[in-house]
Amino acid sequence: MEKYYNVIGKPRPLIDASIKATGQGMYGADMAIPNMLWGKILRSPYPHAKILNINTDKAKKLRGVKAVITSDDALGAKYGPFPEIKVDKRALTSDKARYIGDEIAAVAAIDEDVAEEALDLIEVDYEILPSVFDPEKAIEPGAPLIHEGSERNISLKYDWHFGDIEKGFSQSDYIREDRFVTQKVTHSPMETSSAIASFDPDGRLTMWICTQDFYFLRRDISAVLGLEESKIRLIKPPCVGGGFGNRAETGEYVLIAPLLARKAGKPVKVSYTREEQTCYSRCRHPMVIELKTGVKKDGTLMAYDARLISNTGGYNTYGVVATYLSGSFLIATYKVPNVRYDGACVYTNTTIGGAMRGHGALQPRFACDSQLDMIAEELGLDPLEIRIKNAYHSGDVSANKFHFQTCGMEECLKQVAEKSHWEKKRGNLPPFRGIGMAGCCFLSGGNINPGITFSPIVKIYYDEAVSLITGATDIGQGCNTTLAAITAEELGVGMEDIRVIAGDTDINPIEPGSYSSRVTVFSGNGAKMAASDAKRQILEVVAEAMEANPEDLVSRDRRIYVKGDPGRGMTFSQAISLCYEKKKLPIIGKGHYVPLVPFPNFLGGEGDLSPAYSFGASVAEVEVDPETGKVKVLNFYMAHDCGFVINPLAVAGQLEGSTHMGLGYALSENIGVDDQTGQIMNTGFLDYKILLAPDMPKVQTIAVETIDPNGPFGAKEAGEGTTISPAPAIANAIYDAIGVRIKELPITPEKILKALEEKGSK
Amino acid sequence: MEKYYNVIGKPRPLIDASIKATGQGMYGADMAIPNMLWGKILRSPYPHAKILNINTDKAKKLRGVKAVITSDDALGAKYGPFPEIKVDKRALTSDKARYIGDEIAAVAAIDEDVAEEALDLIEVDYEILPSVFDPEKAIEPGAPLIHEGSERNISLKYDWHFGDIEKGFSQSDYIREDRFVTQKVTHSPMETSSAIASFDPDGRLTMWICTQDFYFLRRDISAVLGLEESKIRLIKPPCVGGGFGNRAETGEYVLIAPLLARKAGKPVKVSYTREEQTCYSRCRHPMVIELKTGVKKDGTLMAYDARLISNTGGYNTYGVVATYLSGSFLIATYKVPNVRYDGACVYTNTTIGGAMRGHGALQPRFACDSQLDMIAEELGLDPLEIRIKNAYHSGDVSANKFHFQTCGMEECLKQVAEKSHWEKKRGNLPPFRGIGMAGCCFLSGGNINPGITFSPIVKIYYDEAVSLITGATDIGQGCNTTLAAITAEELGVGMEDIRVIAGDTDINPIEPGSYSSRVTVFSGNGAKMAASDAKRQILEVVAEAMEANPEDLVSRDRRIYVKGDPGRGMTFSQAISLCYEKKKLPIIGKGHYVPLVPFPNFLGGEGDLSPAYSFGASVAEVEVDPETGKVKVLNFYMAHDCGFVINPLAVAGQLEGSTHMGLGYALSENIGVDDQTGQIMNTGFLDYKILLAPDMPKVQTIAVETIDPNGPFGAKEAGEGTTISPAPAIANAIYDAIGVRIKELPITPEKILKALEEKGSK
Repeated sequence: MEKYYNVIGKPRPLIDASIKATGQGMYGADMAIPNMLWGKILRSPYPHAKILNINTDKAKKLRGVKAVITSDDALGAKYGPFPEIKVDKRALTSDKARYIGDEIAAVAAIDEDVAEEALDLIEVDYEILPSVFDPEKAIEPGAPLIHEGSERNISLKYDWHFGDIEKGFSQSDYIREDRFVTQKVTHSPMETSSAIASFDPDGRLTMWICTQDFYFLRRDISAVLGLEESKIRLIKPPCVGGGFGNRAETGEYVLIAPLLARKAGKPVKVSYTREEQTCYSRCRHPMVIELKTGVKKDGTLMAYDARLISNTGGYNTYGVVATYLSGSFLIATYKVPNVRYDGACVYTNTTIGGAMRGHGALQPRFACDSQLDMIAEELGLDPLEIRIKNAYHSGDVSANKFHFQTCGMEECLKQVAEKSHWEKKRGNLPPFRGIGMAGCCFLSGGNINPGITFSPIVKIYYDEAVSLITGATDIGQGCNTTLAAITAEELGVGMEDIRVIAGDTDINPIEPGSYSSRVTVFSGNGAKMAASDAKRQILEVVAEAMEANPEDLVSRDRRIYVKGDPGRGMTFSQAISLCYEKKKLPIIGKGHYVPLVPFPNFLGGEGDLSPAYSFGASVAEVEVDPETGKVKVLNFYMAHDCGFVINPLAVAGQLEGSTHMGLGYALSENIGVDDQTGQIMNTGFLDYKILLAPDMPKVQTIAVETIDPNGPFGAKEAGEGTTISPAPAIANAIYDAIGVRIKELPITPEKILKALEEKGSK
Repeated sequence: MEKYYNVIGKPRPLIDASIKATGQGMYGADMAIPNMLWGKILRSPYPHAKILNINTDKAKKLRGVKAVITSDDALGAKYGPFPEIKVDKRALTSDKARYIGDEIAAVAAIDEDVAEEALDLIEVDYEILPSVFDPEKAIEPGAPLIHEGSERNISLKYDWHFGDIEKGFSQSDYIREDRFVTQKVTHSPMETSSAIASFDPDGRLTMWICTQDFYFLRRDISAVLGLEESKIRLIKPPCVGGGFGNRAETGEYVLIAPLLARKAGKPVKVSYTREEQTCYSRCRHPMVIELKTGVKKDGTLMAYDARLISNTGGYNTYGVVATYLSGSFLIATYKVPNVRYDGACVYTNTTIGGAMRGHGALQPRFACDSQLDMIAEELGLDPLEIRIKNAYHSGDVSANKFHFQTCGMEECLKQVAEKSHWEKKRGNLPPFRGIGMAGCCFLSGGNINPGITFSPIVKIYYDEAVSLITGATDIGQGCNTTLAAITAEELGVGMEDIRVIAGDTDINPIEPGSYSSRVTVFSGNGAKMAASDAKRQILEVVAEAMEANPEDLVSRDRRIYVKGDPGRGMTFSQAISLCYEKKKLPIIGKGHYVPLVPFPNFLGGEGDLSPAYSFGASVAEVEVDPETGKVKVLNFYMAHDCGFVINPLAVAGQLEGSTHMGLGYALSENIGVDDQTGQIMNTGFLDYKILLAPDMPKVQTIAVETIDPNGPFGAKEAGEGTTISPAPAIANAIYDAIGVRIKELPITPEKILKALEEKGSK
């Protein structure tokens, strides 16, 4: 038997690694086109204010100003991720400002300075309204109402019941209830949000934009500009300085750039400053989670009763999705037969929540996995033991009807415990050092977007180059490399034979895009099928020439030969020459992937959100300085079941990156909002603290391979789900180190010192 | 019956007309990319000189110089249009300089000035050799030998015999022999030749270049750089400032830019100055034609005995093709049963001949159609009469076995005579005014390149936009518009539904390219087939939904309906939605065109050069000023059989453009070469005289429509063949005006005055 796979399963650098490492990559924020103007956005200085009048006369008269727009220029159209559900966002607001930073008007001018100056000349008359920043206060009777028609500022409420919650609690030996709070954090991509829009004289729009999903953006641009989708061409520059969900949504700049370009009759670039990026792009939804849990004496989870309030900020956009996902992920990680989920998406006069890596999962997981340790302690169980006890296994179905066709959760727990020397260290570490554990589960692409994935195409020309044409968008996560590897493996050629053609709506098949970790499974299955279709066409020609059956032929490592008789065959080059001679070129293979699982019941919360689920477990080892409250993460161990590992190097990179993001969420990142004024208090990397390289522990990763029948070659999601477990693992490790339980993120030195003080005074 | 066609057959502007007219087009010469260096070429100051030594040390030391290359950097590889035939050209010469301007070395520097300065610092030791500029002198014994191994400087000689030449002359009533000479002219594109080459860190080369044919360029770049073709990506900027054959060939800049980029490790742009463009890019081959013709009393052509010497300059490149084409087009226009063709491609120490609009056809046509008038006069026949007498008709086969499946020659002659009031004017014009006539024939794509045309692809997504993906290159001639119209008609949608994706070898199917007027027939047939394939897929879905047979359905004007019952059906939009629902998207249609005619015998000159031939006739009306010798073209009439006219506006534009080029060839354009030094005497538009707008007559065009079975919807070539007839028509009109016969182009005032003087002295 030859070795199993030729291309996949081997560590290899991303195909654009050398371009990026040598500084030759073109990023969207660096781009310029001839005759380009600069656009700037006028934002509300008030968190809640009625707009009485906007006077742009002075701004228009400033030399160098080429266009000034207000909401009048935007058709009044509303847009959002699911146009049918609770859409309330406009490119520019007209009636009210709903948060500090709400977009009021915009200017295009010959340079950034003139545009900035013109913003100061726009006169807006506001009637200041009372505002509310805390979601729990926002739902109190009498709170200022942010959107007409919403009751108590609730934009959408989920009320799910799975199993029998009463029975679950009545059968429990132990019940406890805790309240957890998570903060507002932001994506902090190194490249700020940026778009260039240019109309040709025939009214076709071209935009250069680093987006995660052309599909949603084009739909929203079409609605707001009143332009047919086929007249909108979106081009993604080759390099993207980080997505993390921020580029999954239609940020205001995406719409303001073409609105300005249309009015000015010239191309316009809008590029956020770091302040705009930090304060006014999207953030992870802050949530309050009240979790009541019932367990048997042996640790078996019997019931969850969760009340969750998600702060969506001034508008909805992804808020309803986040609250849906939080309910789902509450249930998905450990077996709980009886669940009530009361999840409310609530408006406040703060900046808008959006999709962010591990969307909707980090918040409930912090609650559940923190509380699970507290329960284990009460029951005298080891945190590892209680997690194994409640772990799902392949074939299990969750209360909300997620079908886990493969699940390596128990293996992840066991292996991460072994790797981290859990048993040896647990209880035996020196003072102020502790070890903690948490689990995670995530989806491999959402089954919630339009049911069709447009197919990747594989083309082969006489030069033997194989083109994979895909609508998937590589935003730095490396999907071009993954898809190239899948294509090469299936077709039987090398990585170097594949060129990936992506990033242009005029050229590529439209796909929903790179979000909810869908690309490997969705686009990967499509690419595999397209490669298989292309291979079939080649094998037919070869079979005819060899007087063999196509089914008896194998294509592997640039050779096509009779199965079991490698000597009988020809090279891939010879096969392509043969196709050329027989006038069968170009070979065009089509692929196509639609999950076989039925569409879930969105409002009811039941049914498969994804065709495949990833699982993972992590262990954190920390040291707490009792003098300063500072936490040092000494070691971090991450085991991940991402199905078959297409590229071990890429997966390891993703796990390290997600750990970095998860640890920042646990320990340091926080957008501070003044509770009197609503003002954001940190505006950039000086005061918004993402972890730096010296802050990072060595991250040791373990791949637990399951072979998922729904994934290409058995692959599942990697690198998003692993953002979820660091926060509870850290909280648990800190408790193990110093005996204080922090239930509010981030776990800052201040909170630790305060908790230590309280503990000392008890 | 509904109107015949919906999209084609109607005048419409080119799809990029508004972009160009508003100055928004991006041309290759205007492009820049970050960190780009400028390349400059060191050229030989001597027409013939041995290179003893090249010292680049001083140049390399100049601040700002990043690379200096000589032939050592170019693998010594030779390249040319037909690698198997007489290839003698290198990117940089190593042994000898063979013309003034021959490429010796090149420099890449931070700007053009530094590069220019560095050229002066390169020291070349030459041993000056005797040189020869006149091809007739070059073949004399003892002439300096330019290439080792060529006998008497003849690079290739054709000796064709069709029919029985002896019998032909013996059956003739009248025989005459004349000598004609044609000059060196150049393409004069408004945009000079320009290329940017950039390597990525993995060694893949990307070039931005305004080329007519990716295919040949890539092959030559591959050979010279030793780089696999699949590692070379060529991108054609959206707009091209004129091709006319000049961009069909791999000019030295195409190779020097990547050689410099590789050595410098940075992108390099090489852009010719106007002087380089005029003097050192390619030119139309100057020829000497000695034509002996035998006719019957009634004007029937019986025999041609033609001796042709083509001056290919210092190297071969397209020389062997030009000489082949000249022999073919000698025979193709009028019926001649017995032919001898003795055609020699001859080296001289002058700049290189290349492909140019009407390649190889203008020179023999000037001879034949001039002489035909002389014969007619001797026999007392009207020039129209003798041409009709010898005209081919549909179904005729020429002596060299060209099968003219359609031929509108007689109609062209009759209609152009009628339109120009030939009969009324002939002999009745005021003094010094005259009228003259000539015919032409051209091919619709050469059957001489690799037998496969890679297929255009038609893709349709959910947004209903139809993408035509083609390897054809729009160089301003408007082929994107023509191909879009063909696709729209066949698919049953509107022009506005089609977007043409072209100009990038990574994305597009490779096609030979835009030369020898091949695109309408070759790529057009492919596009039609691809559209038909896509339509079939849509009709199958619609038919199933309507419970009808796909064969009974029609797609037309964005509606699909039952033939003869337009009410029963659905819109194209509805059909696409249906395909979307049935998960049949994207629709991908493949087309493919290979001429059905067998490959010709290249050296023997027999067999079809093309699947379809265009025909035409023109009439010129001139006034000659006997004092100054200046010729004013008063009227010009052009009838053209280009098969079915896809776009009357585009065809008219092409006919006007080709008339402009043909009249410049007749009257004013000439690259002057000093016969002592070989120095080119005109270096730009001040002294190289292309006709200006005020010099142009009104051009009245007539479309003679034949429906050719080999063309898409019956279309054939348009706009190249019509460059052929102006020169003899003008020569004939001048003779009619003043009774002097000029047999050497261009027909300048000096030549006319001299001829008038000689005539007067007789």
